[in-house]
Amino acid sequence: MHKLLKKRSKKIGQPPGSLIHIGDETVKDVKITIIDYKDEQFREMEAPSLEACFPFKDTDSVTWINVEGIHRSEILEKLGECYGLHPLVLEDIMATDQRPKMEDFGDYMFIVLKMIKYNAENGGLEIEQVSLILGKNFVLSFQEGKEGDVFDPLRERLRTGKGRIRKMGADYLVYAMMDSIIDNYFVVIENLGEEIEVIEEKLVTDPGPDTLRSIHKLKRDMIYLRKSVWPLREVIGSLERGESPLVTKSTGIYLRDVYDHTIQVIDTVETFRDMLSGMLDIYLSSVSNRLNAVMKVLTVIATIFMPLTFIVGLYGMNFKYMPELEWHWGYPAVIGVMVIIAAWMLVMFKRKKWL
Amino acid sequence: MHKLLKKRSKKIGQPPGSLIHIGDETVKDVKITIIDYKDEQFREMEAPSLEACFPFKDTDSVTWINVEGIHRSEILEKLGECYGLHPLVLEDIMATDQRPKMEDFGDYMFIVLKMIKYNAENGGLEIEQVSLILGKNFVLSFQEGKEGDVFDPLRERLRTGKGRIRKMGADYLVYAMMDSIIDNYFVVIENLGEEIEVIEEKLVTDPGPDTLRSIHKLKRDMIYLRKSVWPLREVIGSLERGESPLVTKSTGIYLRDVYDHTIQVIDTVETFRDMLSGMLDIYLSSVSNRLNAVMKVLTVIATIFMPLTFIVGLYGMNFKYMPELEWHWGYPAVIGVMVIIAAWMLVMFKRKKWL
Amino acid sequence: MHKLLKKRSKKIGQPPGSLIHIGDETVKDVKITIIDYKDEQFREMEAPSLEACFPFKDTDSVTWINVEGIHRSEILEKLGECYGLHPLVLEDIMATDQRPKMEDFGDYMFIVLKMIKYNAENGGLEIEQVSLILGKNFVLSFQEGKEGDVFDPLRERLRTGKGRIRKMGADYLVYAMMDSIIDNYFVVIENLGEEIEVIEEKLVTDPGPDTLRSIHKLKRDMIYLRKSVWPLREVIGSLERGESPLVTKSTGIYLRDVYDHTIQVIDTVETFRDMLSGMLDIYLSSVSNRLNAVMKVLTVIATIFMPLTFIVGLYGMNFKYMPELEWHWGYPAVIGVMVIIAAWMLVMFKRKKWL
Amino acid sequence: MHKLLKKRSKKIGQPPGSLIHIGDETVKDVKITIIDYKDEQFREMEAPSLEACFPFKDTDSVTWINVEGIHRSEILEKLGECYGLHPLVLEDIMATDQRPKMEDFGDYMFIVLKMIKYNAENGGLEIEQVSLILGKNFVLSFQEGKEGDVFDPLRERLRTGKGRIRKMGADYLVYAMMDSIIDNYFVVIENLGEEIEVIEEKLVTDPGPDTLRSIHKLKRDMIYLRKSVWPLREVIGSLERGESPLVTKSTGIYLRDVYDHTIQVIDTVETFRDMLSGMLDIYLSSVSNRLNAVMKVLTVIATIFMPLTFIVGLYGMNFKYMPELEWHWGYPAVIGVMVIIAAWMLVMFKRKKWL
Amino acid sequence: MHKLLKKRSKKIGQPPGSLIHIGDETVKDVKITIIDYKDEQFREMEAPSLEACFPFKDTDSVTWINVEGIHRSEILEKLGECYGLHPLVLEDIMATDQRPKMEDFGDYMFIVLKMIKYNAENGGLEIEQVSLILGKNFVLSFQEGKEGDVFDPLRERLRTGKGRIRKMGADYLVYAMMDSIIDNYFVVIENLGEEIEVIEEKLVTDPGPDTLRSIHKLKRDMIYLRKSVWPLREVIGSLERGESPLVTKSTGIYLRDVYDHTIQVIDTVETFRDMLSGMLDIYLSSVSNRLNAVMKVLTVIATIFMPLTFIVGLYGMNFKYMPELEWHWGYPAVIGVMVIIAAWMLVMFKRKKWL
Repeated sequence: MHKLLKKRSKKIGQPPGSLIHIGDETVKDVKITIIDYKDEQFREMEAPSLEACFPFKDTDSVTWINVEGIHRSEILEKLGECYGLHPLVLEDIMATDQRPKMEDFGDYMFIVLKMIKYNAENGGLEIEQVSLILGKNFVLSFQEGKEGDVFDPLRERLRTGKGRIRKMGADYLVYAMMDSIIDNYFVVIENLGEEIEVIEEKLVTDPGPDTLRSIHKLKRDMIYLRKSVWPLREVIGSLERGESPLVTKSTGIYLRDVYDHTIQVIDTVETFRDMLSGMLDIYLSSVSNRLNAVMKVLTVIATIFMPLTFIVGLYGMNFKYMPELEWHWGYPAVIGVMVIIAAWMLVMFKRKKWL
Repeated sequence: MHKLLKKRSKKIGQPPGSLIHIGDETVKDVKITIIDYKDEQFREMEAPSLEACFPFKDTDSVTWINVEGIHRSEILEKLGECYGLHPLVLEDIMATDQRPKMEDFGDYMFIVLKMIKYNAENGGLEIEQVSLILGKNFVLSFQEGKEGDVFDPLRERLRTGKGRIRKMGADYLVYAMMDSIIDNYFVVIENLGEEIEVIEEKLVTDPGPDTLRSIHKLKRDMIYLRKSVWPLREVIGSLERGESPLVTKSTGIYLRDVYDHTIQVIDTVETFRDMLSGMLDIYLSSVSNRLNAVMKVLTVIATIFMPLTFIVGLYGMNFKYMPELEWHWGYPAVIGVMVIIAAWMLVMFKRKKWL
Repeated sequence: MHKLLKKRSKKIGQPPGSLIHIGDETVKDVKITIIDYKDEQFREMEAPSLEACFPFKDTDSVTWINVEGIHRSEILEKLGECYGLHPLVLEDIMATDQRPKMEDFGDYMFIVLKMIKYNAENGGLEIEQVSLILGKNFVLSFQEGKEGDVFDPLRERLRTGKGRIRKMGADYLVYAMMDSIIDNYFVVIENLGEEIEVIEEKLVTDPGPDTLRSIHKLKRDMIYLRKSVWPLREVIGSLERGESPLVTKSTGIYLRDVYDHTIQVIDTVETFRDMLSGMLDIYLSSVSNRLNAVMKVLTVIATIFMPLTFIVGLYGMNFKYMPELEWHWGYPAVIGVMVIIAAWMLVMFKRKKWL
Repeated sequence: MHKLLKKRSKKIGQPPGSLIHIGDETVKDVKITIIDYKDEQFREMEAPSLEACFPFKDTDSVTWINVEGIHRSEILEKLGECYGLHPLVLEDIMATDQRPKMEDFGDYMFIVLKMIKYNAENGGLEIEQVSLILGKNFVLSFQEGKEGDVFDPLRERLRTGKGRIRKMGADYLVYAMMDSIIDNYFVVIENLGEEIEVIEEKLVTDPGPDTLRSIHKLKRDMIYLRKSVWPLREVIGSLERGESPLVTKSTGIYLRDVYDHTIQVIDTVETFRDMLSGMLDIYLSSVSNRLNAVMKVLTVIATIFMPLTFIVGLYGMNFKYMPELEWHWGYPAVIGVMVIIAAWMLVMFKRKKWL
Repeated sequence: MHKLLKKRSKKIGQPPGSLIHIGDETVKDVKITIIDYKDEQFREMEAPSLEACFPFKDTDSVTWINVEGIHRSEILEKLGECYGLHPLVLEDIMATDQRPKMEDFGDYMFIVLKMIKYNAENGGLEIEQVSLILGKNFVLSFQEGKEGDVFDPLRERLRTGKGRIRKMGADYLVYAMMDSIIDNYFVVIENLGEEIEVIEEKLVTDPGPDTLRSIHKLKRDMIYLRKSVWPLREVIGSLERGESPLVTKSTGIYLRDVYDHTIQVIDTVETFRDMLSGMLDIYLSSVSNRLNAVMKVLTVIATIFMPLTFIVGLYGMNFKYMPELEWHWGYPAVIGVMVIIAAWMLVMFKRKKWL
């Protein structure tokens, strides 16, 4: 399971704009890919050096520079200088504990998103921060460089020119990237939904302490998911409202669609939370019910055998003058009495529905 | 019971506007009916082919095209092209996991609603998505094509010309359709209300684990109902506020009425939720009370018989010199002592109200 | 106790504006009373026929027409026609499951309120819907026609000309009616407050399952009360803000007073809700405490008698060579040992505060 | 403890503006004191008759008329007539169940506050309603006339001319009065805070049903405190915003300070509420823990002695052919076996941490 | 642990603006340091006397006067007079129970913040109030004078001229100070996060009453943290919005960054609160589970040994005619029967999963 918190304390005492990487250590090299397109025209290349990115800044075509790996500050610094990014933006890109947000710097926009993957092996969630810079003709994207890339189908669409993507501007590309990320939330939600259904089944058939643990784990997942998705609403909402000239009106309609998806994700997360609370209630009352059942067994046993044991103890006394002991039919009579008592008690318990 | 989630993951990686059906598989054919009316004039027909719908677009009369079955994308595509619908609208019509919403595209409005039916056999809820397109002179409606049609009385009213419906425009028709759908919520709510009353009765007379299960099931139903109704408020509210020229002012008054009904449904759902929580509290405390009762029985039995068993054990000892054993009235005396002890204890328990 | 829901489903499929009575069946005749006043002038009469109401429409004096009994649609229809009411207003008057609301139709206002009565016999609440129409010179009021009329003191004031009521317009009359209704809420609240105090007392002295039932019943009452009062705030607030020319500014000050009372009622209902939750907590923990007490008794008894029973069983064994059995002081010695064990245990339990 | 509700029902049916005293009965005489000051000039007197107050209305100096005791309506009526107060204001002054509020009547303001005193003897809260009228050059204050007066230090400051109070206008006097009242809340809060600390201590060392009762009592106090303080925020906020010409800008800065104090009180009340809920959780789980401890004792005793009692019972059987009974070392052997069993069980329980 | 409340009651009855120290007693001397800088120019000195601060008021360079120790009112009074501070500001500086706030006095701003330190020894939180005055060319800061100073790295940056700090104005200095304080919250949060992880571990392996106590302690810490951080959002938000000419637009971007950090802290505190509630649920259900386990042991033991004890008691009876006692194989037969009964019961319990 991912850590509760990332160590931010190492930044203390540093001047603002200090580029310090906050997040999981990684040894991978930084990988930079460039995609440049306009209508029919399309170029894709892995950047041999950072400097290869610079000339694309002022071209007429849309350029997408994807940086995988954000732990080397000198790369970010140079890129930031070339594209005129504020030092605080670079600092935020390197600090992977940001919450989703959108900041409008006039000639570019800075967007932070969270990519969430469901780890099918241990059922955990993996969160990766994606930072986007939307300029007039370019998009810069920064990923932590974890395994798997949610943008592959998007790249494919760019290559083949499928859909309208190549005819639209940089804002549409950012929309498409956000759409990819949020579509992925549905996969996570479907997986968690399946986990919930499994636990619900188990809650009826065989609840145990591990059921409780599973509920708790899912509740925690919901907390994380919520934390990632909730601020998205505001982010996309303010993008959609189209206050910036960087976002065209026709893209606004598409952003409204992403906005709807976000609301849908939030809705589902809230529904799951409600259901998990309900399941916790059921679990707790099933524990009480089982305690009840155990106690009934104990009470039935004790109530039947205590009087009987008393009777046999009675005739085990060594008094000299106990007339019953001399009777010929004494023993069978006592046996008979005890059978009657036991039978009567069983009937009583049946009536009380304890058996 | 309907599934928690619909598989949306198959859409991942597709460009926006891809027409992919999300929802339950269905084999029924797509059925298209056309109703065209204006004052005294009225025509109703089942469309022999899709193309039959096209000429109605520019007539002066109000045209209602109802499409039952949304799993065939080519039909939607052609219809969308003819009536100038945005690809995202078509995509949303086919994805049946939308939440209720209203989108204003200027020359037409797109409204998504949820139709809820109460399945009397298993007490489950069945949800069907209805999408409406309101244009200047036409209304397109899309249903998933499940059994039963809530619009039948409306059609009847159109045929007979009862009420003012034939004298009003397309916006009034949309209002009438929304009214039909929301009126149906009252049926669902009445049925759930009856279920709640049955459980409340049972909670007093004979609560058991199945009572808990029923409460939980109803709580879940409330979650679904709430999810369907809550966004309606905003949808109808923004329709009513009359910002679009497609909705006339006189229809606005009617929409305010539907708005009231929606608030009433929401109110009732919230009341039900409150009541269900109260019932859960009662159930849980009845479990505790029963545990208490069981424990009292056990304690009474043990408290009476343990001292008695000790006494009879005492005189079962084999000491050589035990004067009481030799006494002539020893046995009856011990019996007497035990009766007194037992009686005294019973009195004590009566006083403590344990019996 | 009043029913959870009123049957609204019979309205399904009817065109809007259909006059269908929703609510309890009643056999009483419809009774119409007319009061007409202006300064010194005052007339009061029971209308012999509906038509008697019509001439008052255009007089200069203030006319109050009170209709008791709303189950006959033809009466409402005619009245509505004469006074120019919208069909939806008539429909809402007949449907007694409305929530409190205010609708401004320009030349008249439509106000729905709930009258709540406390039934001292069974402690239940009785809710009656009152609909008011405020026009320029007239007020129409519609009651369900249940027993008791909260407007009697108001009528008396009109008759005697006490206070300023006869000098003011129709808006002041409506204010006075709302004031009467909301003043009545205080009676209900005082009665419920007394019930709460009785239960609180009982919670300390002798809590039982019926205490829980009482708490639950009161919680339910609060839900209903809240449902009736909460929307009132908005209703009176929007009246007070004086956006309509029908409400004069001097009446606005009085409405602010009613508004304050409404807030006070809401406040008290919320306080009661908080207190009832607290009482539920106390009840539940008193159940736990009693379980603890029961278990302590059981444990004390078992802990004292089990070792003793073991000891007497020990000397009840039939071994040939058991030297203690032959000792002359064996029996008293064993008795002594057992007394010491029992005493020591009692001291232990005293220390643990179990006794 | 003060009553839950004050009897408001006696007002039912009275016309608005009826002066009826709602609150605790009191026999004290009404006491009226007049303070009149301006810069160096200062006069203080107890009014011999009500009429003595009238001439101060139009003086240039600031006049503060304090009325202690509000149960005599004729006094209020005359005063109200002289100072031009609205009948509803007089009605609200006499009804001591108002919630804090501020009403702007143009040439005067009406402010209702709650004075809270902590009764050190029984730990209860005592609430007294204070009504203030702020006019251009005068302040009228109305108290219920309970013991103790929070305004004494303020009067002293007026007498000695300490601080800037004599140089400022009537609005500053009202500010100073509100400040005195809210400062007093801190005393109440400190006392309740000490009670909470005492209970927290007890919760660790020796929790019992009375601890629960104390928590419940404090929770109730919080409900009352909150009810008194919460609306204050709005009252002072709207005063501070300076919309009325009666409040000068320089006093506004001081009101902001009172506003801050109010927020601080509200904050603390909320913190206390959170802490009390936490303490309730701890109490409940300590009850469960004690039940657990009791049950463990019972189980340990039963588990050790039941097998032993069985063994001694075994050798108490009277079968003719029981070889062990004849063995010479039979008795010591059985004793030994039982010691081993008991020891092994004790070790087991130690391991399970039940001992 | 720091006290729940600071004694504010000693201020009661004092005129507003009275300088009374509210907070922990301290014996340290008041220490005043002056830093004055502009671009390359830098001076740092400990003020020999208070008067040394006065000449810096009107210089062109940025002056930072840091006052450590706020318990001596005469120092504050003189400083306040020189820099033209409102008496209420001085009063608030001395009262260390303020909540974070920002007040704009036109030519200077008054900001109150809370510095939080984590005491690693006892896991407690230590809160120190920091008051800032931002003027045109100067910043005054007031600390309570507790150990440790969070501003040391900031001073170092000023000395070395690292970063842009020396090139910017007084507003940037205030930003840098706020940034230092809020960065410190992350350290506190990381420490609390580690505590939470330790407790979570323990909750699975070995939950006990001390686990509950730890959860409760953390919940309390969260309440305090929340109280300190929550109002910060509004404070920084209103600073950032740039309504005052004292805050330049370029500093606004930096303030937005601090704002983001504040939101992040609030978010984490809320997440922790959610997690702690979840952990409480788990703890409580683990208590129930253990009770269940204890009861099962008891029931198993009782259910096995009670019938057996009955059987041996049966053959311990002293009836004259009990044929079984005479049988040669009677004893082994009874032993056999008992073994069978015990074995069957064990199998039953295994099936029920009680063993």
